[in-house]
Amino acid sequence: MTRNLLLISNSTNQGEQYLSWVKNDIVAFCRKHNVANALFIPYAGVNVGQSFEGKTIEDSYNLYVERVQDVFAKDGITVKSVESVENAESAECIIVGGGNTFHLVYELHRLNLMDAIAKRVKEGIPYIGWSAGANIACPTMKTTNDMPIVEPKSLNTLNLVPFQINPHYLDANPAGHGGETREDRIREFLVANKDVTVVGLREATALEVTDDSIKLIGSRNMRIFQSGKDPVEISSKDDLNFLLGY
Amino acid sequence: MTRNLLLISNSTNQGEQYLSWVKNDIVAFCRKHNVANALFIPYAGVNVGQSFEGKTIEDSYNLYVERVQDVFAKDGITVKSVESVENAESAECIIVGGGNTFHLVYELHRLNLMDAIAKRVKEGIPYIGWSAGANIACPTMKTTNDMPIVEPKSLNTLNLVPFQINPHYLDANPAGHGGETREDRIREFLVANKDVTVVGLREATALEVTDDSIKLIGSRNMRIFQSGKDPVEISSKDDLNFLLGY
Repeated sequence: MTRNLLLISNSTNQGEQYLSWVKNDIVAFCRKHNVANALFIPYAGVNVGQSFEGKTIEDSYNLYVERVQDVFAKDGITVKSVESVENAESAECIIVGGGNTFHLVYELHRLNLMDAIAKRVKEGIPYIGWSAGANIACPTMKTTNDMPIVEPKSLNTLNLVPFQINPHYLDANPAGHGGETREDRIREFLVANKDVTVVGLREATALEVTDDSIKLIGSRNMRIFQSGKDPVEISSKDDLNFLLGY
Repeated sequence: MTRNLLLISNSTNQGEQYLSWVKNDIVAFCRKHNVANALFIPYAGVNVGQSFEGKTIEDSYNLYVERVQDVFAKDGITVKSVESVENAESAECIIVGGGNTFHLVYELHRLNLMDAIAKRVKEGIPYIGWSAGANIACPTMKTTNDMPIVEPKSLNTLNLVPFQINPHYLDANPAGHGGETREDRIREFLVANKDVTVVGLREATALEVTDDSIKLIGSRNMRIFQSGKDPVEISSKDDLNFLLGY
């Protein structure tokens, strides 16, 4: 496997423009890998524009693609939406946007794109994913925060890294809320999945992963969860290679 | 179908004792239906006690049952944990506790309890569920907030009411968090499930449902979501019968 991944916690920090915090990192990643054309997977975006009255999911996808095209147009990166398995097999870069992870995974399995994308990325083309798109780079989508609005054929995903990402990792509940915290939920995950490492990837952070290196981007720590151990805070200065198994 | 349901958003308000806000309502519901013995389903409780080091899931279940037994012991309601399908078939009241809804549904399908419980409750025995236990009274678990730590055979659940509950309904994200709000997530659900009504059931509220009546318990409103309409706030003084289809 040749691996060139940019796995981003979230598209948008509260109050900021779409993708603004991470746009420069994405452009630098594309330039490093000589990417001029990227294939975009919009299937997590079931309700882009927030106004679904009379709109179809295809309308939502179209809005989503335009939004991403607009972000990168001035940087000379052309973004095209996926239309077929052949698109994935010939892509020179794949970008997977966020939204509802269940819907994304449902569609990728239904359209036979999950295996096609995994194969193409393992051939070495760059992969960029934010939120749901970062989660599906993992073995499964079992660390999502999203609502299971549809039932995918399987929760297995691209398996490009040997650990799980929890995107939008969040330290505390809103004041007064008694439901499970994110840490509670991840501890439940570890009870049912004892051998899996979970990376709590806070908003405004990302991971850049190659075959033999892994780098934390952003100024916040990430939080590592493993069964039977206390969670650990890891900064961009720490060695992250244990996540790749060495 | 004869229907006697108490569907509770959450066990515990922040900073309060376990079940304290709703204990009197549960006891009154049991007295009204002459319940002295209840069968408890603990399978959502994968990490009760919050310290899973060296513990098994059975240890967690046992702690969970003891916790619930302790709450009702002084009120003359005996709580026993489920051990077999026969337990469900002969139960005089079924209580389903909260925790991880995916794990609960996984186990109920695996152990052939989903159909057995639905049948027994439709025969008229009282059903009490909080959080995950309220969610599975609905047609599906597709409005859960929980992490898909395991993959159930199906997301279909008990189908005791013709609408979906989102337990622990929450109005806002924590300050500074850019991820989807609960309302965003429910709107995504409605895109994929256009004919389904979703009840956002805030903490410290519950629904009491019979064949021909439905009552909101607690002092907070609930929030109703339907495709193509603006969400509506409903108080305990409003007529809720539209939720039952008339």
